[in-house]
Amino acid sequence: MPKVDVSNALPFLPASWLASRESALNEAHARLQENRGPGSDFHGWVRLPENYDREEYARIKTAARRIQSDSEALVVIGIGGSYLGARAVIELLQSPNYNLKKKDTPDIFFAGNGLSTDALLETIELVKDRDFSVNVISKSGTTTEPAVAFRIFKNLLEEKYGKEGAKSRIYATTDAHKGALKGLADTEGYEEFVVPDNVGGRYSVLTAVGLLPIAVAGVDIDALMAGAHDAMSELAQPGAQNAAWQYAAARNGLYEDGKKIELLACYEPSFRFFAEWWKQLYGESEGKENRGIFPASVEFTADLHSMGQYIQEGERHLFETVVRFAACGGEITIPDDPQNVDGLNFLTGKPLSFVAEQAFRGVTLAHMDGGVPNLTVTVDSRDARSVGALIYFFEYACGVSGYLLEVNPFDQPGVEAYKKNMFALLGKPGFEERKAELEKRL
Amino acid sequence: MPKVDVSNALPFLPASWLASRESALNEAHARLQENRGPGSDFHGWVRLPENYDREEYARIKTAARRIQSDSEALVVIGIGGSYLGARAVIELLQSPNYNLKKKDTPDIFFAGNGLSTDALLETIELVKDRDFSVNVISKSGTTTEPAVAFRIFKNLLEEKYGKEGAKSRIYATTDAHKGALKGLADTEGYEEFVVPDNVGGRYSVLTAVGLLPIAVAGVDIDALMAGAHDAMSELAQPGAQNAAWQYAAARNGLYEDGKKIELLACYEPSFRFFAEWWKQLYGESEGKENRGIFPASVEFTADLHSMGQYIQEGERHLFETVVRFAACGGEITIPDDPQNVDGLNFLTGKPLSFVAEQAFRGVTLAHMDGGVPNLTVTVDSRDARSVGALIYFFEYACGVSGYLLEVNPFDQPGVEAYKKNMFALLGKPGFEERKAELEKRL
Repeated sequence: MPKVDVSNALPFLPASWLASRESALNEAHARLQENRGPGSDFHGWVRLPENYDREEYARIKTAARRIQSDSEALVVIGIGGSYLGARAVIELLQSPNYNLKKKDTPDIFFAGNGLSTDALLETIELVKDRDFSVNVISKSGTTTEPAVAFRIFKNLLEEKYGKEGAKSRIYATTDAHKGALKGLADTEGYEEFVVPDNVGGRYSVLTAVGLLPIAVAGVDIDALMAGAHDAMSELAQPGAQNAAWQYAAARNGLYEDGKKIELLACYEPSFRFFAEWWKQLYGESEGKENRGIFPASVEFTADLHSMGQYIQEGERHLFETVVRFAACGGEITIPDDPQNVDGLNFLTGKPLSFVAEQAFRGVTLAHMDGGVPNLTVTVDSRDARSVGALIYFFEYACGVSGYLLEVNPFDQPGVEAYKKNMFALLGKPGFEERKAELEKRL
Repeated sequence: MPKVDVSNALPFLPASWLASRESALNEAHARLQENRGPGSDFHGWVRLPENYDREEYARIKTAARRIQSDSEALVVIGIGGSYLGARAVIELLQSPNYNLKKKDTPDIFFAGNGLSTDALLETIELVKDRDFSVNVISKSGTTTEPAVAFRIFKNLLEEKYGKEGAKSRIYATTDAHKGALKGLADTEGYEEFVVPDNVGGRYSVLTAVGLLPIAVAGVDIDALMAGAHDAMSELAQPGAQNAAWQYAAARNGLYEDGKKIELLACYEPSFRFFAEWWKQLYGESEGKENRGIFPASVEFTADLHSMGQYIQEGERHLFETVVRFAACGGEITIPDDPQNVDGLNFLTGKPLSFVAEQAFRGVTLAHMDGGVPNLTVTVDSRDARSVGALIYFFEYACGVSGYLLEVNPFDQPGVEAYKKNMFALLGKPGFEERKAELEKRL
């Protein structure tokens, strides 16, 4: 289970930071546990680690094995919550270089998460001469980006394998009952998986939305779910020792004190897209009603040599949350240099992880001294079980934190604004009036 | 040359946003052009596109050809400014999937930019069985991260090619006269390139620091330099039509108005690390004396489905700068779907770039309506000449902007704080007292 250390933020918080929030924390916790409060229609993720469809879960594993056996690549089509969770977990556990590495599982390409012509052409080029399958993930089936990409990759599959052959290589993760993609999948006989009604996109990584691509990439999804279950059990206990309460209360207190930006930092480059997943989780849950902490991320130590100056001495409106993995997968010993050219022979024979540990400790103190509160989330190791727990921890803390902020953490009313404008400008039937208005302004 | 459009920020700025800054802009501009003012020792980048060492430049091209002919991979060892520029340009012009693509130039791996054991082990695994060379980039040769990585990859080269063979595969980009790496390179006879004294790390991408790896990756560095030269000539002209003045003045005005975060957005996924380079440029130049805009970045349209909610309705302390590439490399036509499952047949036959263009226009208006000022920087196309100009544009605007903010845009005094702590905690001789102090606090 992730452990939260708030000691390096305490000098920036009033003594009552937790006690003064106790009743709000209790209420937030109770809403999640008892399935009530704003957005309770989307509380399905709270019990997900024990309350999931076992039959579907078994089919996910079977489908993953089939894709592993008949495909050299899997194209995962989805955007937002139908994209970031899978990419986050695959990069964190299998590496950002996953596709480059020698392995016996398929390459994974993400498509339909943007409108770049060049990026899409490149992905087509990378898969078209290989055996591949497609996992299209969309609750409605009508979101522009994934829908356009699906048209293209479906055509590619049909050219390559014929209409019938293509059908057996398309896996649709969509609504259980309704919608365009659901209808098509039923008609064509695609294997189907479900985007549950009571789990929002940013909370969906432990449903079929995330689990199928994650399993194809060779991650042990049983361990991932077990880790989430560990966290679910522990975080169901209310009280000051609850790690999610601590994180939610500390960030709420820092925000009230004028710390408007949270920098999620990690010393592992493989964490980059996990931070992107976290940004969606927190930014979309809390950024409403002209409120909310702005979520940003840095990769240490690289960014100590780029954003480090700003963190140390820029405007004092930020705090840091550092995710630490206590153990590495392997070990590197600093080799000796008989000439000691770089003057680092005092490190000879020491493990590189020791250097990283001292960097982490030194950075924490330097940033505190510079006026940047530090929260630390320590995770045992970069393995599936620990990461499953980390996912649930951040999800639960986000629900608590959103309720502390007195917003509905489970809606996203602002996401429609650009879509409406885009549809109008694209000339979608029914948007004629808006189109005229917008064109006048442009 | 990049064009700046401030029209979508004007409703958020006083009418005098530019006029009121005219004398400050003139002074900032004159400091850069006449090489005076705080940090003028680091103004070498201002005339770099015409005033560079031609002999060295020719050697960069020769070395790149040699690496291309004798290496399947190049390991680029450097951190901060000795890392981000090359990665930014290679990803933007050749793709984030550069290493995955079929090509006749070597893979490029970046190392020595962090302390992750697992990431370093993985890079070793990816190159050790292939023919590779090393470009070690460090002004001093004693910065911990690159120095440790260089010890390791130098050993690997020596095991593989013998001591003599290794020497001809090591390219050292370092100080012209002094320092640990310079000394070693002289002794061992490595081919040497120069980190100029009057160009800071974050401004060094168009020196050998960036140019050697960029050339190895097959980018036309003549075009890159020509683009920078275009921008240099144009931006040397003072006045309200100067694009760098416009950008610098607008962001300075927005900052004064309480917009504390600048979100650099682009619709191309290949822009991700260019945004990281930009973050260092602006964050490190302006983030001092408890001031400065916090630089952040988003990838559209992907992040409209994650950070989009926050941008539309979160705390109103941000503005957006969108970098637009006017043309794509290729074209994709939206295919027809006889069943019109997704309801998008009104787009059939249209180019995907048309959809992206309408998304961009719709997003701009939606975000303005939500209270987010928008600046647009339009670049002709994603080619070397345009990107060279974009680099120089951002560099020049950053110098102007930093002087408007009344800071020294060319120092980075805060970067040392964590290093001192780290050295002390690592037990570096000479830091005993600080170590005792820090350990007491931990």
